[in-house]
Amino acid sequence: ELVDAIAAKLRAGPLAGKRILVTSGPTHEPIDPVRYIANRSSGAQGTAIANALTGLGAEVIFVTGPATAPMPQHAKIVPVQTAREMLAAAEDALPVDAAIFTAAVADWRVKSASAQKLKKSKDGLPLLDFEENPDILHHIATLSDKRPGLVIGFAAETNDVVDHATAKRLRKGCDWIVANDVSAGTGVMGGADNTVTVIDDSGVDSWPKMTKAEVARRLAERIAQAMS
Amino acid sequence: ELVDAIAAKLRAGPLAGKRILVTSGPTHEPIDPVRYIANRSSGAQGTAIANALTGLGAEVIFVTGPATAPMPQHAKIVPVQTAREMLAAAEDALPVDAAIFTAAVADWRVKSASAQKLKKSKDGLPLLDFEENPDILHHIATLSDKRPGLVIGFAAETNDVVDHATAKRLRKGCDWIVANDVSAGTGVMGGADNTVTVIDDSGVDSWPKMTKAEVARRLAERIAQAMS
Repeated sequence: ELVDAIAAKLRAGPLAGKRILVTSGPTHEPIDPVRYIANRSSGAQGTAIANALTGLGAEVIFVTGPATAPMPQHAKIVPVQTAREMLAAAEDALPVDAAIFTAAVADWRVKSASAQKLKKSKDGLPLLDFEENPDILHHIATLSDKRPGLVIGFAAETNDVVDHATAKRLRKGCDWIVANDVSAGTGVMGGADNTVTVIDDSGVDSWPKMTKAEVARRLAERIAQAMS
Repeated sequence: ELVDAIAAKLRAGPLAGKRILVTSGPTHEPIDPVRYIANRSSGAQGTAIANALTGLGAEVIFVTGPATAPMPQHAKIVPVQTAREMLAAAEDALPVDAAIFTAAVADWRVKSASAQKLKKSKDGLPLLDFEENPDILHHIATLSDKRPGLVIGFAAETNDVVDHATAKRLRKGCDWIVANDVSAGTGVMGGADNTVTVIDDSGVDSWPKMTKAEVARRLAERIAQAMS
């Protein structure tokens, strides 16, 4: 960690010396040893953001669920499976100067995941009892002691994108929300492009459609500006 | 298709001229546009089997869910997402001389997958109503007209492997069951090795631990022998 910190300080760029947490990918919530519930997320936008941040000199801790996108090049990778593991890894990464929550965290988990493969019941259907997963974004954004200076959430919506995302920003207690429309027709999920809207306390900033790498670079520059 | 058939006939090997269906990978059953239920399966064993079969001259139709393993080199790839799509693609592939069902098909799907992203309800928990997916192996193994001459199922078990697999062979109506223990400790899921037991009407044939590629080659040779 000392070596990483020294390496970060030696890096050039507007984010040199800044330590930034990025969460990425989906979480997998086990039903039993062979079944799970997941959110669709390749992790591509998260990887692009981590790469853009290290490109500006930041030290990045990259907490990632089982993503299919390549891992970022110069970040510290912390692999996790479930939402609870992701929260623990995010807390372990504190203190950080900024935290960017791109992960598509499952909202629920199965209450008592079975240690053995579930056999079909008489009617063939499972009885799954759900419980809520921790709200990682809300938890970190409302910490009294170690809250990062800049907390950014993502909102993947399929309808009323700006309305839902604006409400989410207030509900979660984060500084910015990056909202996008992931409806099937948009090709965002699994695709190369993204069309995002950045919402902060000064209003709504809609960006044109661009590649996920371009979204990442523009967001990293906005972060550098906000932290300078 | 004619070109494929001619190419297959021109291929050397004990399975030249044979047309074989292989299913592989997991299925993803949508809950809503961003959430799904899945079985853990990299598709590595299915890809290895397809490669071994084409290596012996077979024409392979490879019906695959969203797998993370590389696709086979010389098979006809038919990508699907859900169990119902996999059944339809398997039926489309008929007639075949043999069918090998390595896919980890989700047993259930959500009754009415939502076209919009589910919002948290008051208590934060989803109400998911399940229904059974089609039993692809049983369906194909019990066809009256187009049943393939050799039908092979796979059984991923975490306990009482041979007992469960023996019962499964009879219940499904298939000729062979290839059973393996996918308990967390075995490292089979996502790993390079596999320890399988082949069960047919003559009894139980337990193979030593070997790579998935070796399992595939040995199984392909056993298939060639049975079909000669």
